[in-house]
Amino acid sequence: MTPIHGGNLEWAVNLVNCSLSDILDFSASINPLGPCQSAIATIIEGIAQLQNYPNPNYPQFRQAIGNHHHLETDWVLPSNGAAELLTWVAWEAHYLQGVLLPSPCFADYKRALQTFNLPCQFYNLEDLETGLNHSQNFALLINNPHNPTGKLWHQKTLIPYLDQFPLVIVDEAFMDFLSPHEQESLIDVITDYDNLIILRSLTKFYSLPGLRIGYGITNPKRVKKWQKWRDPWSVNTLAMLAGIASLNDHHFQEKTWQWLKPTRAKLAQELTKIEGLKPLESRTNFILVQTKIPSTKLQLELLKQEQILIRDCVSFPELGEQYFRVAVKKDEQNEKLLNGLRKIYDIPTNR
Amino acid sequence: MTPIHGGNLEWAVNLVNCSLSDILDFSASINPLGPCQSAIATIIEGIAQLQNYPNPNYPQFRQAIGNHHHLETDWVLPSNGAAELLTWVAWEAHYLQGVLLPSPCFADYKRALQTFNLPCQFYNLEDLETGLNHSQNFALLINNPHNPTGKLWHQKTLIPYLDQFPLVIVDEAFMDFLSPHEQESLIDVITDYDNLIILRSLTKFYSLPGLRIGYGITNPKRVKKWQKWRDPWSVNTLAMLAGIASLNDHHFQEKTWQWLKPTRAKLAQELTKIEGLKPLESRTNFILVQTKIPSTKLQLELLKQEQILIRDCVSFPELGEQYFRVAVKKDEQNEKLLNGLRKIYDIPTNR
Repeated sequence: MTPIHGGNLEWAVNLVNCSLSDILDFSASINPLGPCQSAIATIIEGIAQLQNYPNPNYPQFRQAIGNHHHLETDWVLPSNGAAELLTWVAWEAHYLQGVLLPSPCFADYKRALQTFNLPCQFYNLEDLETGLNHSQNFALLINNPHNPTGKLWHQKTLIPYLDQFPLVIVDEAFMDFLSPHEQESLIDVITDYDNLIILRSLTKFYSLPGLRIGYGITNPKRVKKWQKWRDPWSVNTLAMLAGIASLNDHHFQEKTWQWLKPTRAKLAQELTKIEGLKPLESRTNFILVQTKIPSTKLQLELLKQEQILIRDCVSFPELGEQYFRVAVKKDEQNEKLLNGLRKIYDIPTNR
Repeated sequence: MTPIHGGNLEWAVNLVNCSLSDILDFSASINPLGPCQSAIATIIEGIAQLQNYPNPNYPQFRQAIGNHHHLETDWVLPSNGAAELLTWVAWEAHYLQGVLLPSPCFADYKRALQTFNLPCQFYNLEDLETGLNHSQNFALLINNPHNPTGKLWHQKTLIPYLDQFPLVIVDEAFMDFLSPHEQESLIDVITDYDNLIILRSLTKFYSLPGLRIGYGITNPKRVKKWQKWRDPWSVNTLAMLAGIASLNDHHFQEKTWQWLKPTRAKLAQELTKIEGLKPLESRTNFILVQTKIPSTKLQLELLKQEQILIRDCVSFPELGEQYFRVAVKKDEQNEKLLNGLRKIYDIPTNR
């Protein structure tokens, strides 16, 4: 049995009896260009500040997030990864009948709802475009771009739901992989809707999942309420400093956008050429791939033969064995993955 | 108005218009000998691992905590500071009528209960020894040693409450400042009581409040339940690594115990000599001091004249202006505090 996300790297290491750095990890969707040097430098400098508690208001970090999105600082709440905020989303929604979730979806949404015994119902991704059938007393959770399919919805598709649901949560953990003019973030309308909560992550684009950095964007009243709900120092000092440095590193952002688009297109094209595989069109930094060989079998073979780790989709029960997910990595790493897949599918490699 | 704990250092910096390192901070009760070099070294090494998610089971960290307390690893739960676990303590207790809290107490206890609309009642510290008057459906929270008084209760005083209350939480955040043979931890009886939860902190003794490191000790069933409740990666990788290194640094632990006892005794003795001040007997690394000059006035004077920050007790409403709290720091730092206090109380200094 593969363990849950984050534990699977250690599982892989034990399985093939190698060291952590020997594994080529396509299972976590982390930007291969990072972390940026500016973040690393600020982390090292920040070690001298660890003897002090962080300021629970995180004024500098909120300022950096506010500047990034052209928002006042009282609209933003830094967090210990976006996952921390899923807990408070669920507690916020607990007075409602339940929450509508996309199917398939990130398993941690269900974790948060179960904590507070809040029921969930599921909607099909296609229905988001044609119109959701819903009970009035449900909150709606949207994941844009969607994990694991990589699908992006337009703002104009989503905005009408803000008038239909008492509470709308949009998890935009992977939105920053789109360049600013391509993004379809609802941050643009946040000041118009008191019932809107947007979640963002800084760990994927800036390659710092080990530090835990995310934030929420919602109206200042709710920000204040959540600050009173949660423990005062949930964001550690190094995460705060690295978050500020990363948001200010425009060079790194440009470099990532320029790398991702052509690299993803090439990877998708090559995957298509392998008979038995069918990649879905993705707008972000991972690709969901339909596979004729069951994904857990494929995962094991790739690990044993190539020390490559892909994400089976067992944690997305609707997908099961017919799909796996891979991060888009650097060209030479993607080529290794492709060659591994070609071998297993018995197709001549490019080498 | 002074802000809440953690923010008060920045408040002080702004007030006297100096840099952070100019302030001599007696307000946070942090070990002045730390962080230990072994922790710093492991943090620097660990930066290379930040591109990976931590393993949500934290097996190595749990092993280190388990070894430290001679417990199986399934009895311990690492956390993002002890404060994170106060949230889950409150949710654990929400099916009860409320929680009995010591008066005075750490403000974050009330925060956690208010989050889930759980009522609290208060008991006087003396009553813990003579017997609490209580309603059967209340959880009992004990803070041993007690913040801010520094009082330590014996195991034998506390153990009978484990049979009387449906749920007993013992916050032992400052217990590790006592040497092992002086500690009165209820960890010794944890395997006998399913209704016992013990909270520990690694940020005070090991001087790493900026990294956020704590843990809970309770029966394995509850550990598993809380792991499902909370977000999977709440402890960041550097906190985990520094926690392991710190727990294994026996030299640093010995050094701290040898430093604290005589240094605290000397500081208390000198405080007693200042007419108008009356320090309470403390068994840990801070001293609560009764003061004739109102504490917020004293705080301001010390800041302006000496750039020394003490903890007024405004966040402990029962104490108000008659008390302040100071950390025990190194001899030469304590001497600066004493001289500052002597000046304000108009007593000839030792210089």
